[in-house]
Amino acid sequence: MTLNYAKRMDNIKASEIRELLKLTQKPEVISFAGGLPAPELFPIEELKRISKEVLEENGTAALQYGPTEGYGPLREKIAERMAKVHVDISPNDILVTSGSQQGLDFSAKIFINPGDIIICESPSYLGAINAFKAYEPKFIEIETDDEGMIMEELEEALKNNDNVKFIYVIPDFQNPSGKTWSTDRRKRLVELANRYNIAIVEDNPYGELRFEGEILPAVKHYDTEGRVIFLGTFSKIFCPGLRLGWVVADKEVLNKFIMVKQGADLQSSTISQMEVAKFLETYDIEKHIEKIKDVYRKRRDLMMKTMEEEFPKEVKFTYPNGGLFTWVVLPENINARELAVKALENNVAFVPGGSFFPNGGNENTFRMNYSNMDEERIVEGVKRLGVAIKEMMGDTIKETI
Amino acid sequence: MTLNYAKRMDNIKASEIRELLKLTQKPEVISFAGGLPAPELFPIEELKRISKEVLEENGTAALQYGPTEGYGPLREKIAERMAKVHVDISPNDILVTSGSQQGLDFSAKIFINPGDIIICESPSYLGAINAFKAYEPKFIEIETDDEGMIMEELEEALKNNDNVKFIYVIPDFQNPSGKTWSTDRRKRLVELANRYNIAIVEDNPYGELRFEGEILPAVKHYDTEGRVIFLGTFSKIFCPGLRLGWVVADKEVLNKFIMVKQGADLQSSTISQMEVAKFLETYDIEKHIEKIKDVYRKRRDLMMKTMEEEFPKEVKFTYPNGGLFTWVVLPENINARELAVKALENNVAFVPGGSFFPNGGNENTFRMNYSNMDEERIVEGVKRLGVAIKEMMGDTIKETI
Repeated sequence: MTLNYAKRMDNIKASEIRELLKLTQKPEVISFAGGLPAPELFPIEELKRISKEVLEENGTAALQYGPTEGYGPLREKIAERMAKVHVDISPNDILVTSGSQQGLDFSAKIFINPGDIIICESPSYLGAINAFKAYEPKFIEIETDDEGMIMEELEEALKNNDNVKFIYVIPDFQNPSGKTWSTDRRKRLVELANRYNIAIVEDNPYGELRFEGEILPAVKHYDTEGRVIFLGTFSKIFCPGLRLGWVVADKEVLNKFIMVKQGADLQSSTISQMEVAKFLETYDIEKHIEKIKDVYRKRRDLMMKTMEEEFPKEVKFTYPNGGLFTWVVLPENINARELAVKALENNVAFVPGGSFFPNGGNENTFRMNYSNMDEERIVEGVKRLGVAIKEMMGDTIKETI
Repeated sequence: MTLNYAKRMDNIKASEIRELLKLTQKPEVISFAGGLPAPELFPIEELKRISKEVLEENGTAALQYGPTEGYGPLREKIAERMAKVHVDISPNDILVTSGSQQGLDFSAKIFINPGDIIICESPSYLGAINAFKAYEPKFIEIETDDEGMIMEELEEALKNNDNVKFIYVIPDFQNPSGKTWSTDRRKRLVELANRYNIAIVEDNPYGELRFEGEILPAVKHYDTEGRVIFLGTFSKIFCPGLRLGWVVADKEVLNKFIMVKQGADLQSSTISQMEVAKFLETYDIEKHIEKIKDVYRKRRDLMMKTMEEEFPKEVKFTYPNGGLFTWVVLPENINARELAVKALENNVAFVPGGSFFPNGGNENTFRMNYSNMDEERIVEGVKRLGVAIKEMMGDTIKETI
């Protein structure tokens, strides 16, 4: 029996990374593959206290249906905290979602007809690419430098295509590249979007995890006409297991998100929302974030240092000032998927970079995560990886000879 | 500024019921409008104990990302419990979703191209209709009698339309009609779906809440070729606030659901899944369901009795053997939306029936929920409603004269 599926299903493939991640579950594997936060930092004791209190104080409401928009006191807290990225909004500008992944899915659902264009950074977050693909878009990838998208390329793309629906960006410690946009580039992005009447989807899961310097104003901060949709999440500053994120958007756009949310799953978990709201009332999340940053900063430092020592000098990588990832570019003739197989034989895992390019290519790249492994494993894993890279480069040289 | 949205958004309107439900939040309103379970039956004390245990025993896993398919031990428990509706499956046949609403959204996402046909009962669940509409289907409504869809009408529809993608049914205590399909009709439904190679989406949120007689085998029980997709939920037998449901489907179809889930929100809440799994291990959910049934049965009885006493004899309504709803048919010239306004002036609410018909019409119908109001309020509310109906019928007679 073969059922007759929708055309969009041709676009949705099982992620090879998902299969890879299954292999990396084994305890002997040193995995730089996932984007997992460090579980030893989860506020378990605090949550034990809070979940009891929520059930004691308001158990029937916590277990009942709630409004699609989200739990009022949580929306208030999120609105307050948006000041950290220089965005001044009210709770009514917020929809609570099931992780920011849901915000990505909804963005495409709201804007994309088959064949419409999404502009994104090259490379871009593969979870977003996969979510968008269900709505059958075309992608235009824009190159980035150390300040963000190259504006001339972006303008060229906007000028030459009349069915661009939105520009998707991760301006802070981008997944996968680890790069951050300058404030100037953020401003110019909004100006271009204004000129061509395009929406911007700003995905910001890591912005608060800055190890050096000041947190930059979000692209949303520069939004003069209400066209920036900001996606936030508690996954990286609190924990991902509760699946809570949020969308900030202007009234008209937010109403679309709310209607779509209602059809998609009615609402996000009432009790989880009440728990996070209570955590934000009871504890100092800024202190908690400082703790996370201290740990990740050390891990970033160690990974950078060890990569410098152990990787051949032909191998380039970014130096991220925050977030969870660095991005490695191998010599062009080295295939990172082949390297991944070789590395896995030595119980080290990473994500080959090809999947982060919606239009393909760039198979000589890979993404490294440093948040989820302790320091000893970071050193050992990078060392093994260095050996594997050198072997492959040696093999290639031999082949060339 | 007006952004350029996807065509599908023309199909998605804010539900007028949602506005109605906001009005019914006031404590003085006796509401038969929602589909809310009785919150006084939520297992709050049990959950307090369990959430502490889950965090103590396995806190880091509970707060971390988990597999898209769902938490293994929960899938095992769900697979076991499917025996109650005579469905024999393994945990691998299950995807955990964020409520069965998400299963509805995914069903349309997987099968529906714009213009494709969904066949449903007339009336059908409005939350499903709204979820489906985002994928721009056409609907064919099939009349039902006391045994389910009229098979001759269904076959006619299948014969005359070659782009029917699935048949959506709620065979047990249907929302909104309160009706239940006979076993014979379930079998014949599968036979017809086999003959025309159509999928069936079986939505079963209320099947276990049967007040009299034996629980019937699900349509999925009669599935000979793996074309029935079964949607279940913990919302009505446990609580809705955790947002947990599940999909049962054959491997090929389930894989589509898993891929779609990954793009939509990665996974459902890890900690909530672990809590429900532990509840099912620790406590006797069957006993808990008995408690729910005892309360709802009494409320059903009281609503039926009071409606018989207080409604004019021209008003017809179903006698549900389970579930949460009864369905009222007024004389054809009485508009239930007008009645709703009148009733709300007297602080009584219900949902006008028109929205449950995807192709419109039937404005002389409405849905009554009996699970969420205590016995005193049921009697008082139905009495007030009886007065309002009589007044409207009187007015109409006067107008006719």
